[in-house]
Amino acid sequence: MTDAPDPTVGEIGESRILREIFAVLAGSSQALVGPGDDAAVLAVPDGRVVVTTDTLVHGPDFRLAWSGGEDLGWKAAAVNLADIAAMGARPVALFVALAMPADTRLTFVRDLATGLRAACDALAPGCAVEGGDLTISDTLTIAVTAVGMLDGGEPVRRSGARPGDTVALAGEAGMAAAGLRLLFARFRSTDGEAIAVPRNRLTPQETAALDAQLRPRPPIALGVQAAAAGATAMMDVSDGLALDARRLAAASGVTLALSAAALGGDPIAALEGGEDHALLAAFPPEAALPEGFRSIGVVQQPGGHPLLVDGAPYDGPGGWDPYRDWDRRSG
Amino acid sequence: MTDAPDPTVGEIGESRILREIFAVLAGSSQALVGPGDDAAVLAVPDGRVVVTTDTLVHGPDFRLAWSGGEDLGWKAAAVNLADIAAMGARPVALFVALAMPADTRLTFVRDLATGLRAACDALAPGCAVEGGDLTISDTLTIAVTAVGMLDGGEPVRRSGARPGDTVALAGEAGMAAAGLRLLFARFRSTDGEAIAVPRNRLTPQETAALDAQLRPRPPIALGVQAAAAGATAMMDVSDGLALDARRLAAASGVTLALSAAALGGDPIAALEGGEDHALLAAFPPEAALPEGFRSIGVVQQPGGHPLLVDGAPYDGPGGWDPYRDWDRRSG
Repeated sequence: MTDAPDPTVGEIGESRILREIFAVLAGSSQALVGPGDDAAVLAVPDGRVVVTTDTLVHGPDFRLAWSGGEDLGWKAAAVNLADIAAMGARPVALFVALAMPADTRLTFVRDLATGLRAACDALAPGCAVEGGDLTISDTLTIAVTAVGMLDGGEPVRRSGARPGDTVALAGEAGMAAAGLRLLFARFRSTDGEAIAVPRNRLTPQETAALDAQLRPRPPIALGVQAAAAGATAMMDVSDGLALDARRLAAASGVTLALSAAALGGDPIAALEGGEDHALLAAFPPEAALPEGFRSIGVVQQPGGHPLLVDGAPYDGPGGWDPYRDWDRRSG
Repeated sequence: MTDAPDPTVGEIGESRILREIFAVLAGSSQALVGPGDDAAVLAVPDGRVVVTTDTLVHGPDFRLAWSGGEDLGWKAAAVNLADIAAMGARPVALFVALAMPADTRLTFVRDLATGLRAACDALAPGCAVEGGDLTISDTLTIAVTAVGMLDGGEPVRRSGARPGDTVALAGEAGMAAAGLRLLFARFRSTDGEAIAVPRNRLTPQETAALDAQLRPRPPIALGVQAAAAGATAMMDVSDGLALDARRLAAASGVTLALSAAALGGDPIAALEGGEDHALLAAFPPEAALPEGFRSIGVVQQPGGHPLLVDGAPYDGPGGWDPYRDWDRRSG
């Protein structure tokens, strides 16, 4: 199916692009009605379905000099899978709305589909792309909607944490932000443009940080395990542990008291770095934490502040507000 | 909640934007878990769920001089509701990924949410926005995912039409394209830029065409009725009747033989105009067509051509392939 030279999507049109994407996805659908009709039909034996949506936009969310098609497909899947996992659910389907400039190369689209499929296979086996939409845009945009199943379990909301619960975290904290800092510090031209990263010249630590940023591996399967272990509250840590912990505390009407020593060698980085898509959860004190979760603190009665670190209110930033924080020039 | 002057989304940040959107949507959620957590949870008593996604992008899909926020919210909802209806399903939830330039006005966002809600209330009562995502982008992009229920019925695919079936259509054919032609012909500046439409100077016919383009009213409830009446195949006519009829014929392995006289005063316009989101369906010959459907032809054994009009093969264009057809300069 390869052309020489690699055509653009504007040269080949929608039907051909779809054929190429379907070729990459072939055999993965688990749906009653998969891609190709007006809509997909999924079996939901449990009688409840979990749905979320999250978008990656060229500029604020990624740069093509830093992320290839496979990286983007992977990340677009991973960030949505994490939101399903954070409800205690099992992801089963992705729907992908892809808006691309006409000069996008076909190989890029194929790589993107490959990355979507690879992330599902690695992080949420049984989950597949079951539908989507193609359109043209000046700005490359990947809007993914993920669907999950509860398999008889109860959804775990942000609002159920109770005083006395253990606060636990699964996954990275601060690594993805370290990767982003590395990119901004070392892989931009003098006028601020993103430039390609020579992977073979990175240290193992730098490679790990870059992978956390470009191809995050949230602990998807631990979402269901946390629910089964009795988690009272859970959320995906996308905007930094500090900000998201304050959100969980506010939703539950409690205070989260964290221990800096439990946050690794650089607690500030762990508290303030976003995009790791770790799972932050509260468990009853008697619960056995599923392997992969580590205790980082305790839930307290609501006090004057939703988040304490080593007993002191923590107001440090966290989070990335795209409307406030994106500066087109610096990226 | 109104500011003076109207702030931009870049000035107020994500939490405030969300508060304003939630205020517009208040009371509409029907979900077990509605907007505000990592994901929504919907009840699916039937054990199957129908999912589709469709995107509107500034430039190829709309111009802000022609479409206000309410128009865009309405249309983004309507085109997705139509895909759910085309499966014979009842829409119950929308998920809206909104990527906006930082200089977008808050009133625009509020209007967009109002339009989403109004389209649900008018076209699919009981359907509501149950989640979404906000991000920043140079290109205003509205990616909607719709979820529907089958309520015990069977999904109606494109592939089930059988020779002898009646071909029927519900909804407009050619009106939305007439509206687009009107906009391009009369409401652009000499250098091709879209300019505002003085509604009070339009004829009733022009107003109807413009409404069909900007605020389509697909016959959503007829999707479920068609399924109940035994429709063997159905699809949403978004790319023009001719192209979509050929698609249904190909999926079903049949020929569709249409009668030009059944297509109104301008059959070519009806066959080639896109964006009406009518429902094209096939019914067994003995079925009583639900009120709102009109017979436009008959399904035949597959012949040399998937589509005949008055007995002759019809190859006329239909459809809008964004990758091939969008010319940024002309719109």
